[in-house]
Amino acid sequence: MGTPLGSGTRTPEDDRTARVALMRMAEAGDPVMGRLIAWCGPQQALEQVSRESLDPDFATKENELAERSGRRSDLARLVTAWAARYGDPEADLALGRERGARLIVPGDSEWPTQLDDLGDARPFGLWLDGQANLRFACLRSVSIVGARAATPYGVQVAAQLGSELSIRGWTVVSGGAYGIDAAAHRGALAGGSPTVVTLACGVDECYPRAHEDLFRVVRSQGVVVSEWPPGAHPTRPRFLVRNRVIAALSRGTIVVQAAVRSGALNTATHAAGLNRHLMAVPGPITAVTSEGCHMLIRSGKAVCVTSHEEVIDLVGSIGADLAPERRGPVRPRDELNDETRRVLEAVPARGGAGPAVIAVAAGVDLTTAIGCLGGLAAAGFVEPVTRGWRLRRQADLQGRGDHAR
Amino acid sequence: MGTPLGSGTRTPEDDRTARVALMRMAEAGDPVMGRLIAWCGPQQALEQVSRESLDPDFATKENELAERSGRRSDLARLVTAWAARYGDPEADLALGRERGARLIVPGDSEWPTQLDDLGDARPFGLWLDGQANLRFACLRSVSIVGARAATPYGVQVAAQLGSELSIRGWTVVSGGAYGIDAAAHRGALAGGSPTVVTLACGVDECYPRAHEDLFRVVRSQGVVVSEWPPGAHPTRPRFLVRNRVIAALSRGTIVVQAAVRSGALNTATHAAGLNRHLMAVPGPITAVTSEGCHMLIRSGKAVCVTSHEEVIDLVGSIGADLAPERRGPVRPRDELNDETRRVLEAVPARGGAGPAVIAVAAGVDLTTAIGCLGGLAAAGFVEPVTRGWRLRRQADLQGRGDHAR
Repeated sequence: MGTPLGSGTRTPEDDRTARVALMRMAEAGDPVMGRLIAWCGPQQALEQVSRESLDPDFATKENELAERSGRRSDLARLVTAWAARYGDPEADLALGRERGARLIVPGDSEWPTQLDDLGDARPFGLWLDGQANLRFACLRSVSIVGARAATPYGVQVAAQLGSELSIRGWTVVSGGAYGIDAAAHRGALAGGSPTVVTLACGVDECYPRAHEDLFRVVRSQGVVVSEWPPGAHPTRPRFLVRNRVIAALSRGTIVVQAAVRSGALNTATHAAGLNRHLMAVPGPITAVTSEGCHMLIRSGKAVCVTSHEEVIDLVGSIGADLAPERRGPVRPRDELNDETRRVLEAVPARGGAGPAVIAVAAGVDLTTAIGCLGGLAAAGFVEPVTRGWRLRRQADLQGRGDHAR
Repeated sequence: MGTPLGSGTRTPEDDRTARVALMRMAEAGDPVMGRLIAWCGPQQALEQVSRESLDPDFATKENELAERSGRRSDLARLVTAWAARYGDPEADLALGRERGARLIVPGDSEWPTQLDDLGDARPFGLWLDGQANLRFACLRSVSIVGARAATPYGVQVAAQLGSELSIRGWTVVSGGAYGIDAAAHRGALAGGSPTVVTLACGVDECYPRAHEDLFRVVRSQGVVVSEWPPGAHPTRPRFLVRNRVIAALSRGTIVVQAAVRSGALNTATHAAGLNRHLMAVPGPITAVTSEGCHMLIRSGKAVCVTSHEEVIDLVGSIGADLAPERRGPVRPRDELNDETRRVLEAVPARGGAGPAVIAVAAGVDLTTAIGCLGGLAAAGFVEPVTRGWRLRRQADLQGRGDHAR
C-alpha cells in the first residue's frame, strides 16, 4: 500500500489523536473528510483511510452526491492522497506541547460551537496558543478584515473600530496580516479585551515575520488559532480556507478596505453564506482601496457602517441568526435553570472571579460552572474580565432587579 | 381696503401678468395659493385676493382641509398678508426685460412639466436668464447638491461627476452655492452640456457675489432659474423653498457631501418625496462632511453611488417613476406618430439643426417641431447640441436601422 503507516499506530488511542492525524492527511475544510468523520467518527475514518478502503455505504453516498451535483467522483484518488500524507500524530502532539500550543476538537469545552455552522467544512480540530479561552472570547466577537495594502485612512479606521469594540467587551477576530488586520488587532489590544489571530500556518510560525511582537502580545491577551499543525507553513490556498474560520468564529464581519478582488471579500462571502452580519466601511470613491466595500454596500450584501455603535447595534441585536438561544439579549432570570441561576448568583458585580471560585460558591462542579458561564455570557448576563468573570451592568440592573422583587 | 391696488390694474390683462403679481404676493410654493390658482385661474385669484374676498366655496374647502389635518385655518390672515404685498406686475415685467430675464409659466413650451409633480407647491412661474431652453435641458438632468463647506475630496468628486455626466449629455442642476454646487456647475460647463443654476434670489442678483463669473458662463451655456422676481434678495427660508425645485427639475439628486443637518439633506428629502432617484456619494467616515451621505445610505433612502456610470445606470433606467412615457429609453420608431416620425427624419446625425430648419424639413410648424423634439429627446432619439438638435448615436443605430429594413 506504500503508506508510512506502521501497525503500532494503525489504531489511534482516541478520537483526539485520530483527528491530529486526519488534519495532516486531508486539506483543512475538505467536506468529504468532514462527512467521513461525521459518518463513522475520527478513529474509524483514520483506519479506513489508512487501509485505503472506505465503508462501501459511505462511498456509495459520496458517489451519489457527486453525481447529483454534476461532478466526477474522485473519491479513490482522494483517499490515496490522504493515505500518502499520513504522519505520526504523536509527533505533532509532542511538537505542540513543546511549542506551548494546545489542541481543541469538537466537543471540548473550549470548542466554539458556532463553527458547527460550517457544516461539512467544519475544522477537524484547532491548534491554539494564547491565554484567552477561544470559546468565551468569541461569544461576543466581531471580525475585522481588509486589505494588506491599506491606506492611512483604513489603518486609522481599523484601529479605531478595534479599540472601541474591545473597550466595550467585544473580541476582535482577524487574520494577523499586514494593514487592516494588524491595525484591528492592535486597536483591540489597546482596548483591553482578547483578540483572536487566525493564521494560515502553525500557531508557532510567525507570518508575516514582522508581526512577531504583535503575536506575542496577542498570545498574552488573546489567542492565536490555526487548523494546521505546529511548524506548518502558509500557502496561498490556506489563506482562503482560513477565511471561513474568521467568518464563522464571530457574529459579524466588517470589511474596512478591500479592492474588488481580494481575500477580504472572500471572507465577506463566507460571512454572508453563514448568515453572519456583513458590514463594510465606506471610504473615498477616489481610492481603489474602498471599491470592494462600496461594491458590497451597493449590492446590498453588506450594511454600511461608520462607527462602532452602528456595529454593536447590528451584531448585538435581538434575533441574530446565530443560535439566538445562546446569543440573545439579556433574558429575565426566571428563564434560567436552577444550576445556571446559582452560578449567576455567584458572579461578582465588581472585580471578577475565576470559574473555580464561582463553581465553589455556586455549589456546582468546575465543568458545569464553565458551561453555565458561557451560556450566561452569551445571554448577556456576565462578561469575561482579566480576573475571570463579572456581572454585566445591564444584567446587574435587570437580573438582580428581578431578584429583589 | 387699504391695498395699493389701483382700479386700472384690478383686472390684469392675462394670466401671465396675474401670475407675476401673485409671485410677489404669496410665498413661493405656498400650497394655499397653489390651490387657489388651480381653483379659479390666476386672474380670478388675483382679483379675489385684491378684494380680500375669496370664493366662499374655496374658503370652505380650505377650512375643511385645515380641520382634517388638525391645523387652525388662517386663511383670512393669509389673504390680508397677500393683499398687502401687492406690487405692480408691469414693473417686474419691465425690470425683467431690462435685465434680460424671461418669464415662463405653466403651459408655456419651455415650462418643465415635471414640476407638476410638486402639486400644490408647483411654482407659480419661473424667471429665467440664459441661452438654454429649461425644458429641453432638464429632460435628461441630474441634480448634484452638497455642503458649502466642502472638502477638497468633495469638490473633486462633484466636479468629476458634473463633467462626466455633462460629457454624456446630462444636464446638471444645482443651487449655485459655494462648495459642492459650484464644483458641480463648473464640471458640467467643462463637459459641454447646459447646466441649471436654481437661485433663491432674482436671476439678475448674484448670490454668492463671488460667483458672478460662474453665473455669467452658465447664462451663456445653460440657464439661471428663480421663483423670485428680478431684484429679489435671498433669505434663509427661500433657500429651503428653492430646494424643492432643484429636486423636481431633475430625474434624480446626488448628495456629494452633507452634514447630518443641512440644506442638501432638505433637497434629498424633496427628491425622495417626489419619487426621484436619490443617490449619495460615500466618503471617509472620519469626516463629518460625509455623515449626511452615510446616513442616507444606511437608512436605505439613498443609493450609494461611486461613479457617473452608476448614476446613469440609475437615472437612465427603464421604469423611472417620472412619467415613463416621456422619459423611457429609446423606443422603436414604429411607435412614433406620423408627425414625430417626420421630425425625427429631419434631424441630422452630425452637426446639428435648429428647430426652425427641422420644422421646414419635416413640413410641420415650429411649435409642433419643438414639441416633437422634446418628446424625441425624452425618448432618447435626439439630443440637444450647441447648434440645435442631432440624432443620438443609439437612435442612429436603432431608429435608422429599423427604417432601412
